[in-house]
Amino acid sequence: MDDNTVLIGTKPLMSYVLAVVTQFNNGKSEVVIKARGKAIVRAVDTAEVSTRQFLSGVVKKNISISTDSVETDEGPANVSSIEIVLQKS
Amino acid sequence: MDDNTVLIGTKPLMSYVLAVVTQFNNGKSEVVIKARGKAIVRAVDTAEVSTRQFLSGVVKKNISISTDSVETDEGPANVSSIEIVLQKS
Repeated sequence: MDDNTVLIGTKPLMSYVLAVVTQFNNGKSEVVIKARGKAIVRAVDTAEVSTRQFLSGVVKKNISISTDSVETDEGPANVSSIEIVLQKS
Repeated sequence: MDDNTVLIGTKPLMSYVLAVVTQFNNGKSEVVIKARGKAIVRAVDTAEVSTRQFLSGVVKKNISISTDSVETDEGPANVSSIEIVLQKS
């Protein structure tokens, strides 16, 4: 995974907001937020809180959704995913 | 609300998929899926299942996220929202 990607899991929201803000502060011009399934809500929250409260001049460049196939105990299953690209303008 | 909008709530996923498919079958060329908070995941699922399994030739035209201010028992609170525009191509 590229090191400008923040993969959203089950940690508290602010952990991911901090991760995004840190990437930009370290000089990255673009940060990609990715999530699957229930974590999608937290990905949207992360993008909103980061851009509204911590990062002036960073915009939502692109948002895409897709379906990933994952292996579960009961065989393959489809799960929705989201990818939000933030860019320093 | 425009009648080509499907607002996602707490019903089962397939209720919303059916609503989207019905709109297109009734001749709409564009359908907007909207959700707030935890329902965001179901909005993404609705878009994915509708376009992959039921609607050939319908594409995701635009996806946007924003923050809405809502009134709660404890005063105003911010909640993330998503809007997914599907379009018959």
